[in-house]
Amino acid sequence: MTQQPDYELYGYWRTSATYRVRVALNLKGLKAQEHVVDIDKGENLSEAFLKINPLGAIPAFIDKGHAPLTQSLAILEFIDETHPAPPLLPADPHGRARVRAIAHMLAADTHPLITPRVRKYLTTTGGFDDAKLRGWLVHWFTVGLQAVERRLMEEPGTGAFCHGDQVTMADICLASITATMKAIKIPLPDVPTIAAIVARCEAMEAFAKADPMKQVGAPKAS
Amino acid sequence: MTQQPDYELYGYWRTSATYRVRVALNLKGLKAQEHVVDIDKGENLSEAFLKINPLGAIPAFIDKGHAPLTQSLAILEFIDETHPAPPLLPADPHGRARVRAIAHMLAADTHPLITPRVRKYLTTTGGFDDAKLRGWLVHWFTVGLQAVERRLMEEPGTGAFCHGDQVTMADICLASITATMKAIKIPLPDVPTIAAIVARCEAMEAFAKADPMKQVGAPKAS
Repeated sequence: MTQQPDYELYGYWRTSATYRVRVALNLKGLKAQEHVVDIDKGENLSEAFLKINPLGAIPAFIDKGHAPLTQSLAILEFIDETHPAPPLLPADPHGRARVRAIAHMLAADTHPLITPRVRKYLTTTGGFDDAKLRGWLVHWFTVGLQAVERRLMEEPGTGAFCHGDQVTMADICLASITATMKAIKIPLPDVPTIAAIVARCEAMEAFAKADPMKQVGAPKAS
Repeated sequence: MTQQPDYELYGYWRTSATYRVRVALNLKGLKAQEHVVDIDKGENLSEAFLKINPLGAIPAFIDKGHAPLTQSLAILEFIDETHPAPPLLPADPHGRARVRAIAHMLAADTHPLITPRVRKYLTTTGGFDDAKLRGWLVHWFTVGLQAVERRLMEEPGTGAFCHGDQVTMADICLASITATMKAIKIPLPDVPTIAAIVARCEAMEAFAKADPMKQVGAPKAS
């Protein structure tokens, strides 16, 4: 007997935000039926997908019988509220604020600057050539990761993971950024604390299974 | 007898993220001692401020005896968790996910693209002139607000405010974007649902008191 998936997830192999949702589902032991929305071919703006999510944004997460949920961090909070174990946030409000702040430094301060729609604007209206675009990507990845590295190095809250010794939303966002960098071939700057935490994440099945390169639609390893 | 403020807030008159924290504190009836960090003069990178927040980012929110909290949405969640009334999120998980998603469409998809550090990169390394920079700002404000407008128009969850008839985090983020647009003189696109919600927000004392133009350091009305 095949187990019925709990949810549906519309996403794409490469995107950082889809990766975050996959990891959270894996950590909670939840299953989602995945649907590929090829944003490189503009499928997110197709009539078929706009019927699912009129905003044309992925990931779109469907809890059957309800409107699609969007925005990866809002989806992570939803998954955590409806399936509390294992928790994606610590129990104390100051710890939760620290985890959310690190998550937002990555998912809100860093990631929005390197999304396809921004790259497209820069290379068309913005007049950026390939070298200038690459300079932009390297700059914001580096600035973002160095700021997080500094927090992780200096703050006593850091443990084997971003906050203590349990995986939280912050680790999911961190690994999502480094996975995207790998997918688009941007090297990691010198951020040893981050590198060690990401290595610990990647050793866990929940993260390994969510690896962009292992998803449907990913290019074959060369 | 003077009431001792509950918190300290390091921010700047004009910034969207500081505005969000001010509104949340006002809604909860909490007081913070405000410290001006003039980011136009680079004070966020001064030795004095880096002792408060080594990341040089505002807002920095101090709950005495604890490390500074950063990232406006993480601070809003903290304020809501530690002072639940009136709530900044609805009670049901689907509603909470919708509110957080709208908040993130504004604070994570839109706002990071128009921050001072991005504008600076574009006008230096990026080679944008004034017209090109203004084009960039107008584009992302417009795209962001039109996407939110579409949700608010089409989704049954919308009420007098973004979600039902109570102010939530989504309204705070929405009003923070329109307040920033006003401060940097970018006109609001044709988004009637948003305009009506923001007008309702601005009629409330909690929002009116947080108006960037009324803060220390703001330019005199001309």
